[in-house]
Amino acid sequence: MNVIEVPDASDERLADYVRLRDVNLRKSLEAEHGLFMAEGEKVIRRALRAGYVPRSVLLTERRRAALADVLDRLDAPVYVVAEDVAERLVGFDLHRGALASFHRRPLPDLEDVLRGARRVVVLEDIVDHTNVGAIFRSAAGLGIDAIVLAPRCADPLYRRAVKVSMGAVFTLAHTRLRDWYGGLEALRGQGFRLLALTPAPGSVPLAEALADAAPDARHALLLGTEGDGLSSRWLEQADARVRIPMAARDVDSLNVTAAAAIACYELVRR
Amino acid sequence: MNVIEVPDASDERLADYVRLRDVNLRKSLEAEHGLFMAEGEKVIRRALRAGYVPRSVLLTERRRAALADVLDRLDAPVYVVAEDVAERLVGFDLHRGALASFHRRPLPDLEDVLRGARRVVVLEDIVDHTNVGAIFRSAAGLGIDAIVLAPRCADPLYRRAVKVSMGAVFTLAHTRLRDWYGGLEALRGQGFRLLALTPAPGSVPLAEALADAAPDARHALLLGTEGDGLSSRWLEQADARVRIPMAARDVDSLNVTAAAAIACYELVRR
Repeated sequence: MNVIEVPDASDERLADYVRLRDVNLRKSLEAEHGLFMAEGEKVIRRALRAGYVPRSVLLTERRRAALADVLDRLDAPVYVVAEDVAERLVGFDLHRGALASFHRRPLPDLEDVLRGARRVVVLEDIVDHTNVGAIFRSAAGLGIDAIVLAPRCADPLYRRAVKVSMGAVFTLAHTRLRDWYGGLEALRGQGFRLLALTPAPGSVPLAEALADAAPDARHALLLGTEGDGLSSRWLEQADARVRIPMAARDVDSLNVTAAAAIACYELVRR
Repeated sequence: MNVIEVPDASDERLADYVRLRDVNLRKSLEAEHGLFMAEGEKVIRRALRAGYVPRSVLLTERRRAALADVLDRLDAPVYVVAEDVAERLVGFDLHRGALASFHRRPLPDLEDVLRGARRVVVLEDIVDHTNVGAIFRSAAGLGIDAIVLAPRCADPLYRRAVKVSMGAVFTLAHTRLRDWYGGLEALRGQGFRLLALTPAPGSVPLAEALADAAPDARHALLLGTEGDGLSSRWLEQADARVRIPMAARDVDSLNVTAAAAIACYELVRR
């Protein structure tokens, strides 16, 4: 294990870890260097188990023995810093005591992600990393085969999404469409029936839409952005508009993570 | 409409609105004065529609005309403050521009909440206000009849819970058990079958547990705290342990709001 004590938060070697709460800075830094961050022992272990290669690991002095079993086998440097150095560096109290910077991998081709998949979730423009992470966690837990992201959907490997997903972003196959306007055609071309989830009038209960389908049908569930839902383009492209039945109350819709969880549950039990 | 311009953040009349992000201060202040906060026009309207009585309303100058249609009929003072005064007062940028302080009402008796209810959710010790709010929103939207809170469950009328629930906390009947240890007996006494949701081995799929039940059966779904789930006491007290089936992957459970949404969905379709 290559352990290096670093006394100074401005040390160049710690550059991957600066200002983790500064979303704009982090987005450009992570894109530029092709890296992502994993936080906490459990999530770091999951990234390693999924075959991601670490650039480096950062441990606070209190947790310097953490992860020793897996770090022994790695070449990546392990930086050990004092708690106050960690806080100055990342911008908050690093109470979990462990961070790691990993190399991203190129996203797989859509065709590879869809091969063999029967139930797929497609996220149009979810903007909130917490929601993206929560949807990955539910989808992976319930048994969805893959997730496809529209070009502007938030990054599932952003720190907050990784954390909320509990590392499900490492194991659940996913990729990103290059084209928003015509992107769904590629799914349809692979034989997927496109189900647009929307509370708008004219949609049918999801369970009904699925009851009509052949037992080996391939389904892609389309989920739209938090505020406005799916774009009219994608709604038009869908084969069916489906909804989760609501009670007649003052609440007219579910939040996107609750809706996604229910829809994934319904999708996998067929 | 009783509009009062207040130039000074330290004005006594604004005392209800101080430091909204200081959880400990707010908890004691709100308990002491029997108040809760509603944020944003939509949520304030829902509180009014549900019959809650405002103590006062706070608008920023940019939004001073907001809510005029409903405020005209009220006696409560409407304080108008400059944006920077609002920010100094509440502790963040009040971009929604509208806050209201409401009188709490005494919680109803358990018996009244359960009367006529067939599907009830019981929250043991959910600690996170966001989760409590999300569960209320899903439960209300899907058609759950009532929510019962254990003595230590987080407060559904706390600002963050109110906001995340989109005001569902105002319309969905709920109350709090006084006794944790023996509290479930009161539900059982009313004929409720107690279903403990837990991913632990030995639980049966929720759908199976419900398929066995009489069509007019009354069900209470027990949900435990975010980290550790239900207490062993409540698990023992339950009539059945139920789970949401998980795929064999690296993800071993759902987060509590996703699990609650799916369980409520399953409960209301019987």
